Amino acid sequence: MKIAFCCTDTRPEPWLQGLSAALPQADIQVWQPGMAPFDYAVVWAPPQQFIDEQPGLRALFNIGAGVDGLLKLRLPPGLAVVRLEDAGMSVQMAEYVCHALIRHFREFDAYEASARQGQWSFRKPRSRADFPVGIMGLGVLGRRVAQAVAQFGFPVNGWSRAPRALDGVQTYSGPQGLQDFLAASRVLVNLLPLTPDTENILNHDTLGRLQPGGYLINVARGAHLVDADLLALLDAGQLAGATLDVFRTEPLPAQHPFWQHPKITVTPHTSARTLRGETIAQVAGKIARLARQEPITGVVDVARGY
Amino acid sequence: MKIAFCCTDTRPEPWLQGLSAALPQADIQVWQPGMAPFDYAVVWAPPQQFIDEQPGLRALFNIGAGVDGLLKLRLPPGLAVVRLEDAGMSVQMAEYVCHALIRHFREFDAYEASARQGQWSFRKPRSRADFPVGIMGLGVLGRRVAQAVAQFGFPVNGWSRAPRALDGVQTYSGPQGLQDFLAASRVLVNLLPLTPDTENILNHDTLGRLQPGGYLINVARGAHLVDADLLALLDAGQLAGATLDVFRTEPLPAQHPFWQHPKITVTPHTSARTLRGETIAQVAGKIARLARQEPITGVVDVARGY
Repeated sequence: MKIAFCCTDTRPEPWLQGLSAALPQADIQVWQPGMAPFDYAVVWAPPQQFIDEQPGLRALFNIGAGVDGLLKLRLPPGLAVVRLEDAGMSVQMAEYVCHALIRHFREFDAYEASARQGQWSFRKPRSRADFPVGIMGLGVLGRRVAQAVAQFGFPVNGWSRAPRALDGVQTYSGPQGLQDFLAASRVLVNLLPLTPDTENILNHDTLGRLQPGGYLINVARGAHLVDADLLALLDAGQLAGATLDVFRTEPLPAQHPFWQHPKITVTPHTSARTLRGETIAQVAGKIARLARQEPITGVVDVARGY
Repeated sequence: MKIAFCCTDTRPEPWLQGLSAALPQADIQVWQPGMAPFDYAVVWAPPQQFIDEQPGLRALFNIGAGVDGLLKLRLPPGLAVVRLEDAGMSVQMAEYVCHALIRHFREFDAYEASARQGQWSFRKPRSRADFPVGIMGLGVLGRRVAQAVAQFGFPVNGWSRAPRALDGVQTYSGPQGLQDFLAASRVLVNLLPLTPDTENILNHDTLGRLQPGGYLINVARGAHLVDADLLALLDAGQLAGATLDVFRTEPLPAQHPFWQHPKITVTPHTSARTLRGETIAQVAGKIARLARQEPITGVVDVARGY
């Protein structure tokens, strides 16, 4: 079988070596325009030309959880688009979200600012019961984050497109459940896929429905958030702060107000990095199954968008 | 029954109200020199005179987990010294330790420093397998912290005075197990009681045995740590950093080098605060049991020191 590798911003050699070791019978090459037909592709942000030149392609493996970038391309009907499933990302998400949540709840940023001044000063303990955490998106990542947050004793709410029951999580679903979900939450964690339905879902109306002192943790996509609405709510004191890992334009432009805003923590899309070893093992395993005509998981519903 | 309340640095009124509500038949008063005999006392750092004047005292309830301060007093033989058991402290410890651990492991401090410069720059992901966490002290707090750390997938080692088995934790015990425990750990979390055996246990020899890039999280007592030894190991590059919540002298003196050290994070003994509601419920419940001649838990082995 022939496999093409087409990932921008990634050094291809270790990927080719890893994939070759996992699939010794495969012919794996870095994509170039005008290549002979291949069966499978491992991609991140490939150009439209890549798709157009390969009408016989059987499956496209995305080395990330979100396929919103891929689905912006014109894809031939019937092409299987496969997203990465966990592959070491969900525990990273749990770490990132718990760090941001605990840091906000326990006010460790304020303690560190005091310490830099050499000040030994207490802050009044706050009650976990007053910080219900709402998680948007209850897929592999959202469920893992919910579990991690719940074990610290925070009340946890979850919201998803379709109804879903989860132990220890108060779940809501669909447009009709969104307002109740937001009103029941103070810290909002966004882990939704980016689709036409979810673009701009974090806006003045939705964020304004959070409980007083609301806090946003966005670890999904920058296009979920209306930047100006967040800034307005922060500056009006209606939200207490935000930790943002994803942005409409990445890298976040130097002049963007998020960088220096005192209530915003910016990280450079690092909440859950693609881990090469785990990803190669998962993709190679799925390619081997497809080659044996066996079913695989993680195939995207292109119409739904995830 | 008569109860005296003697806690320095705490406003007594809400405690008296809470204890009275929980024990309506009791006579509860703030301690004063020369008071008539009372049966029970709720204390934090009482003076020696308090003990000396009350030879008939039945039990002394400490409103903290560590009783090292109390045991420095001359206590009459047979006086029951009762420590606080959890009462909302273990989840706070789990939060504090996980925040410090994830912050160090994921290098969020370095990311925040980059963000303050407006820099979008990645750091190479590190492997959880390279950050085994060693927890000293496997009581109520240590076990809860071990559980929280383990759910993020870090390898967890535990060390205690007497042998103890814990699911998912590689345990070591006694002086003979200490060196192996330290050599197997990179992040060291101290949750030991302070006793003559554990004073200065964090020193050049023990901290120097941690794996390269070792990191200390001290949430027990300042007297466990030899301050100068930590500074020497940090400045020699043998340890990567430390998060310290407790100090030999509290408040930490203004001129102490910990405050401004770039590899040390200082917090003002806030890792697990005594929560009034939970504490009153626990202490009142135990006093009621003692009054009915029933046994209680949390009675300190004075000879052992915890």
